[in-house]
Amino acid sequence: MIFIPYETVTSTLTKILSRRGFAPERAAISAGLFADANRDGVLSHGMDRFKSFLRAIDLGLVDPSTEPELIWSGGALERWDGHYGPGNLNAKSSMARAMELSELHGIGCVALANTNHWMRGGNFGWQAADAGKIGICWTNTMPNLPPWGSEHPLIGNNPLIIAVPRKNGKHVVLDMAMSQFSYGALSRHSIENRKLQVPGGYDTEGHLTDDANLIMESVRPLPIGFWKGSGLSIILDLLAALLSGGSATNDIEPDLDKEKGVSQVFMAFSAPDYPGLADRVIASLQTEGEPDVRYPGERVLKTREESLKKGLPVDEEIWNGILALQ
Amino acid sequence: MIFIPYETVTSTLTKILSRRGFAPERAAISAGLFADANRDGVLSHGMDRFKSFLRAIDLGLVDPSTEPELIWSGGALERWDGHYGPGNLNAKSSMARAMELSELHGIGCVALANTNHWMRGGNFGWQAADAGKIGICWTNTMPNLPPWGSEHPLIGNNPLIIAVPRKNGKHVVLDMAMSQFSYGALSRHSIENRKLQVPGGYDTEGHLTDDANLIMESVRPLPIGFWKGSGLSIILDLLAALLSGGSATNDIEPDLDKEKGVSQVFMAFSAPDYPGLADRVIASLQTEGEPDVRYPGERVLKTREESLKKGLPVDEEIWNGILALQ
Repeated sequence: MIFIPYETVTSTLTKILSRRGFAPERAAISAGLFADANRDGVLSHGMDRFKSFLRAIDLGLVDPSTEPELIWSGGALERWDGHYGPGNLNAKSSMARAMELSELHGIGCVALANTNHWMRGGNFGWQAADAGKIGICWTNTMPNLPPWGSEHPLIGNNPLIIAVPRKNGKHVVLDMAMSQFSYGALSRHSIENRKLQVPGGYDTEGHLTDDANLIMESVRPLPIGFWKGSGLSIILDLLAALLSGGSATNDIEPDLDKEKGVSQVFMAFSAPDYPGLADRVIASLQTEGEPDVRYPGERVLKTREESLKKGLPVDEEIWNGILALQ
Repeated sequence: MIFIPYETVTSTLTKILSRRGFAPERAAISAGLFADANRDGVLSHGMDRFKSFLRAIDLGLVDPSTEPELIWSGGALERWDGHYGPGNLNAKSSMARAMELSELHGIGCVALANTNHWMRGGNFGWQAADAGKIGICWTNTMPNLPPWGSEHPLIGNNPLIIAVPRKNGKHVVLDMAMSQFSYGALSRHSIENRKLQVPGGYDTEGHLTDDANLIMESVRPLPIGFWKGSGLSIILDLLAALLSGGSATNDIEPDLDKEKGVSQVFMAFSAPDYPGLADRVIASLQTEGEPDVRYPGERVLKTREESLKKGLPVDEEIWNGILALQ
């Protein structure tokens, strides 16, 4: 692992994206979202994926020049077409639009069809919370998770993000896939040669295992809560496809290198403030007698603080690969 | 187990509720919601709880005569005060109001403070789906689940319901607590002397167990997905309390016989129809080669069909107890 200053990362990535057809401002925003993921310790959905993001552009799966288009409005609920633009940019503008709608209606919801992998979903939760909004968003994915009762990856791991703002900036941000471990997490465990904390899926023989490599090989991660996460994944997929009018998981090419045209939902709430409630709830979980309880997003802030001091963590090989693209 | 005709159940319960201060129409609606739970196989949140529901009224925890009051409106998002009325009636009218709002704004959200246990949450998902709406609702609860990293029940199991309508009435309805097994499910396993399918929590010695009695004794059920369900529970509680201005789990008396004043959220969506998508997705999961995959709510309909033929299932002792209340 090496550590690169935030500005060096964003300027390097911006330069590369600008040469791939991104307008300058859009290149900078996209670069910032990649950098933010590494800054917050989510390497798997940050620079780890930058090369595959570029490959998707080269293959024509992602069109860097398009922007989402409003297709239908119900007032507080809007349906947009992502026109296969960059998933992270589409997602950021969709959450921004949901927040605008919430200013007008108390709640705002943007359902986005025909978009692409948003990379690190947590970014869009932090975006909402930093603006003082409650934010919820989720995405469907290609089939990569067996539903309960099957050995075959028929459903997506469909990450869900929920963010609650706090005045002190210590926002509560949940960012979780419906599998016990996201493929990004499996991949990081593999790279760092670490066992999973709990069995995360099956090997090709059908035995539960804590070896990330064996699970990636079998494509049989476990859903959280067995049948419960399986059901939640199925219904989040239905909601994303039905609300946006876009593809369901079953319609998406089951190949990470060809995944294209996912469906996403972004919601924001402008509720009256209820001063200090979130602080009080978190404090009730983290009393002196409970040293081990964490709230969602807690580790992110600690990692962020470190990263801003000593640079963004990135594998040397990944960083050298990026430098070679300049 | 005995089987009682639906009409016998509702007329019996209506009579009892009418004598406890429920207006006639409200008694009938409440009775119907209890009956619907047994009809759909959710005995634990139906007549199993009828006596404790009456006890809560006798103790003054639930006021049968009050109705929710609008406190604040942002347009598509409204905040209501449940005034400690019957949780099932408050929930039903809140979902109805969320659906009205969704007609006006595309999406509608009612956040309800100071309400009481809604009994079977799935009822309100079916309510939305039967009206052709996508419905989402959740509730916080008294502290009854240890967060990940703690041995003490500091968070709620906060059931979440998501419903997607289908034209053929085979709605997809997820109804799940954030614990691997709800207390209702633990209680049914105990009554029926059945082991849990997977370890559902810890015994008082701290060992994982599939014995429901030991988990109820320790009050240490496992959250779904370990740290993930723990995080989801924490953030659903924050959302419910912040949006409604009501109590968070930490504010609620940690005693099932005294639980009072929970917070809930009800959302409905009127999106443009996308014909057949849900049917197509479900069909893709239930191909000939996949005999064991279930969609959320699937078993409910089978159970309902049986119940409407041979009567609602109820433990003889429970039914006799209810008859004695007439």
